[in-house]
Amino acid sequence: MAVGNGELAVLHSIEGLRLGTTSAGIKKPGRQDLVLIEMDEAAEIACVFTLNRFCAAPVQIAKKHWQSDTPRYLLVNTGNANAGTGQQGLQDALACCDAVASLTGVSASQVLPYSTGVIGEALPVEVIEAALPAAIAALDSNGWADAAAGIMTTDTRPKGASRQIELCGKTITITGIAKGAGMIKPNMATMLGYVATDALIGKAQLQAYLEQAVNLSFNRITIDGDTSTNDACSLIATGATGVAVHAGSQDEQVFLDALLELFIELAQALVKDGEGASKFVTVAVQQGLNESECLKVAYTVAESPLVKTALFASDPNWGRLLAAIGRAGVDDLEVDGVSVRINDVLIAEQGGRAASYSEEQGQRAMSQENIVIDILLGRGEHACKVWTTDLSYDYVRINAEYRS
Amino acid sequence: MAVGNGELAVLHSIEGLRLGTTSAGIKKPGRQDLVLIEMDEAAEIACVFTLNRFCAAPVQIAKKHWQSDTPRYLLVNTGNANAGTGQQGLQDALACCDAVASLTGVSASQVLPYSTGVIGEALPVEVIEAALPAAIAALDSNGWADAAAGIMTTDTRPKGASRQIELCGKTITITGIAKGAGMIKPNMATMLGYVATDALIGKAQLQAYLEQAVNLSFNRITIDGDTSTNDACSLIATGATGVAVHAGSQDEQVFLDALLELFIELAQALVKDGEGASKFVTVAVQQGLNESECLKVAYTVAESPLVKTALFASDPNWGRLLAAIGRAGVDDLEVDGVSVRINDVLIAEQGGRAASYSEEQGQRAMSQENIVIDILLGRGEHACKVWTTDLSYDYVRINAEYRS
Repeated sequence: MAVGNGELAVLHSIEGLRLGTTSAGIKKPGRQDLVLIEMDEAAEIACVFTLNRFCAAPVQIAKKHWQSDTPRYLLVNTGNANAGTGQQGLQDALACCDAVASLTGVSASQVLPYSTGVIGEALPVEVIEAALPAAIAALDSNGWADAAAGIMTTDTRPKGASRQIELCGKTITITGIAKGAGMIKPNMATMLGYVATDALIGKAQLQAYLEQAVNLSFNRITIDGDTSTNDACSLIATGATGVAVHAGSQDEQVFLDALLELFIELAQALVKDGEGASKFVTVAVQQGLNESECLKVAYTVAESPLVKTALFASDPNWGRLLAAIGRAGVDDLEVDGVSVRINDVLIAEQGGRAASYSEEQGQRAMSQENIVIDILLGRGEHACKVWTTDLSYDYVRINAEYRS
Repeated sequence: MAVGNGELAVLHSIEGLRLGTTSAGIKKPGRQDLVLIEMDEAAEIACVFTLNRFCAAPVQIAKKHWQSDTPRYLLVNTGNANAGTGQQGLQDALACCDAVASLTGVSASQVLPYSTGVIGEALPVEVIEAALPAAIAALDSNGWADAAAGIMTTDTRPKGASRQIELCGKTITITGIAKGAGMIKPNMATMLGYVATDALIGKAQLQAYLEQAVNLSFNRITIDGDTSTNDACSLIATGATGVAVHAGSQDEQVFLDALLELFIELAQALVKDGEGASKFVTVAVQQGLNESECLKVAYTVAESPLVKTALFASDPNWGRLLAAIGRAGVDDLEVDGVSVRINDVLIAEQGGRAASYSEEQGQRAMSQENIVIDILLGRGEHACKVWTTDLSYDYVRINAEYRS
């Protein structure tokens, strides 16, 4: 199950960056499962990685290489997460970097490895090595769509987004791909995102842009609250257009707006493709005293199994919504000031059901595929948005039947 | 579905306390749904209530009456939670107290009301008033078993426990009943517990005992993390035996051990009766630096939908366990020091699968009805235990199909 049609957008190429996808046969023969991304020497790359303490071997190596050298290649395999693999896993991730290095003439520390797939099985290094020449031969600036498919695990469809804006009379392109459905796909460890632009942006600035965009997109989606061991997202600026994005300029705002829009599109695509997802749900909290309490409320609602099963059932169960808001840890919340809308139907106010509310209205709102839950706390000026999905039989089936 | 046979234990009477159960017909005709508990004038009562900011009308009234007067009656109805009912709900709860007061000759503020059942519907006050004489007529010190049944909502079986100990050559009895399955039964708002003893205990001391016992029992169970709007638990000491429990004495330890044992038995009974529950799971975290980090890890594992669906599937999915431990917010956790056992099978150590582990062993351990997940953090001396259950199709069915 997935929400919406999810057709892959046109993905514009980024000068200074090439992608090559091939079939190594890591888990299933014939499946496109190995992606190599090549960056020009002048390109800058920003990265964020999972905060899970059990982070996978490739995450540890990628982090180290990224901090200590100038990355030129990103190597992504699907079918095997190389996670929970101990010392051997680190050696295997390094061996893949070595292989790329010796074929391309860079040093191994200029290669960042990424793995996604089953946890706890040894990475088939030889199989990957054997396929690398084909991945190199396939390198092409028009390789985005193939790469979007090549990084999928149990995703039902590739996910990509592209934006073009005008800066200084020149066209600037931002293109990105992502895979996974946040935390919905258990052993399939999990979310990966690669976004690139041909604008010229310094390393520190690029890192700030990435963190800001991730914080308002991938960090705002939640399926079941489970964070994977392999999550990673990178933002690359090739600078090929020569158009610099200057901090504090109006151009910067235009660029950041487009960047954030693209990140949100990718993040939402992950939620919509969540296996078991039959609804796409926006939890929008407003009128909070600060952002932190807005997020507490939004996540508590978005992750409440009782709210999620009600969403699955199209049940306008306002009691569960109020109960989730009430236990979100906002200690001095005055329930009289709280109101809740579902798709513009006022369902609750002043600590109880809204006087104007009828079960038919609620039912109609909840039966939509796209649901917006608006929560007004009546305390201040702050707001946040979190995206999630429902909890269905399919979620249990997929996660109960999944065998590594 | 429920775990174990769950036969109701023999519930010894407590001198100085009588319980009367009758059928008011609040939701279903003929169902025992109204319980009155009468305490002798000398009895002390300690109370804890839900921390949910949307707490139900009866909780607000019970709290106020308990703080301002000497309680003599506890009135419990099932079938209607009187929650999310605004100002009318408060008036209705008060009206029930008035009715008890005028029939028994106490003041209304000496009556504590408790409601459990559907959220958001007006409490049928007349129906309750009409049944009160029958509840009063039924008052009996042997009324525990009837009361255990009378406070049930969708519980599949009544829950009670009883202990007798010797203090100063006299027999001291502790008896209690509880209902609900923590947070598993959504709109059925939810956990209620009533425990009484004939020992002589001062009010402040009794409150401390209750908070301590609840903290290590009802506050250590989690089904889905949802806290209800009506949760309440009371501990009554009638003092009828004249045997005082002195703070700091050896007798106190004997009493507290029995009390805690009884509370844990009741709390575990709630988990075992969780609808959709096919496993009873103990998450035991040891070797933590402090209790707080042990609890973080225990709750993250116990509430992880991925761990819970693996438990349902009897899938020894150690990758999900490690991932949950890794995201529990213990920032400086060294994964090399962590080991995990399931029912004495070592499944993970040093950040990965244990060398000695085999899938068959894991499978055998996970297919038991009672599962103990032992997590050793390798950092210190602190420990905690949390009890939970699995996440099954039935959980989704019950919570998706439930209509208020």
